Amino acid sequence: MRYHKIPDETIRRLPVYLRQLLLLCQRDCKNVSSNDFSTLVHTTDSQIRKDFSYFGYFGIRGRGYDVKRLIKEIKKILKLESSRKVAIVGAGKLGSAILGYPGFKSYGFKISCALDTDKRKIGKKIGTHTVTNASNIDILRKRKIKLAIIATPSEVAQDVTDKLVKAGVHGILNFAPCVLDAPKKVKIINIDIAMDLATLPYYLPLV
Amino acid sequence: MRYHKIPDETIRRLPVYLRQLLLLCQRDCKNVSSNDFSTLVHTTDSQIRKDFSYFGYFGIRGRGYDVKRLIKEIKKILKLESSRKVAIVGAGKLGSAILGYPGFKSYGFKISCALDTDKRKIGKKIGTHTVTNASNIDILRKRKIKLAIIATPSEVAQDVTDKLVKAGVHGILNFAPCVLDAPKKVKIINIDIAMDLATLPYYLPLV
Repeated sequence: MRYHKIPDETIRRLPVYLRQLLLLCQRDCKNVSSNDFSTLVHTTDSQIRKDFSYFGYFGIRGRGYDVKRLIKEIKKILKLESSRKVAIVGAGKLGSAILGYPGFKSYGFKISCALDTDKRKIGKKIGTHTVTNASNIDILRKRKIKLAIIATPSEVAQDVTDKLVKAGVHGILNFAPCVLDAPKKVKIINIDIAMDLATLPYYLPLV
Repeated sequence: MRYHKIPDETIRRLPVYLRQLLLLCQRDCKNVSSNDFSTLVHTTDSQIRKDFSYFGYFGIRGRGYDVKRLIKEIKKILKLESSRKVAIVGAGKLGSAILGYPGFKSYGFKISCALDTDKRKIGKKIGTHTVTNASNIDILRKRKIKLAIIATPSEVAQDVTDKLVKAGVHGILNFAPCVLDAPKKVKIINIDIAMDLATLPYYLPLV
């Protein structure tokens, strides 16, 4: 099957579907009607059908979608079938919270390295992780770690990005509230808590 | 000036522009060329022009955009002109990290209340905040807090949402990895760290 024609918009929605399917699976739900599913993910039935059509899955008439099969299909497209190692740079409050975040496992992610420059943190344990000196960032290449999370202050985030790219990282999830530059081959997803919050007041009713 | 015709897509991009403008302002940058600005926010010049045209701002020929004026205009549209109080529910690792997050101030947000159900946490101080018993969630109405951040486990997030809506909250930033139901008048933005990370492997080069 050819997957390369799937549009970016669909690729962005697939993790949302996957998340809901994983939740349904946790609740031992084997099938979900297309109608129920569209309600759960807050989108339209036709949008979902269109998104699934890119990989030739249309559900089963009268039984809706097969939860486990769909999880498998989506994981295959998103390249989440095998376990993925992830490094985290910045072992401060946010970094520590991310290290303890329980949600990674169901997507096959394994935080396998925590880096920091702070001498007081290096060598200390956070949960099961020992904080490594960030000057040893080259270990990412040796360990074939292609994904990284940046949880450092903004001031050093660009420098960290440059070093991660040099160490062979191709995907970055950035929590620092700044825009990062990287070569085109490197995909960066920005999470800016304050910025996301900033979209809410617009929708508040006038008092 | 009429603002109500601004499309949702533009409203979603405005905080990204605002973030970059705030960074420029921090660096004492007074003007930015439309070309430089589009590079900084990773979008096209024409897209930005179109977005700004909704509120009648087009920059100054030869001088580009006036950073401070643009910050003011965007804040006005996003209703970020005055200080906004925000409550946070869940004072665990993630909640504590968010409480200490320095990025809220520049958007005018003030975390003014931290709630938890855990008796070991209630009454304790996290930074400058004393954790309040979540059963007193009604104080949100008294304090006119309309925005809340959910940093609880998924299992209780829907219950928390229902209580927040009852207490008069109209905007929720949700960190729990689940889909929340709320009346249409309530705007929910979901941040799912693992789900965001799940979009990255798709873009990894084949080894």
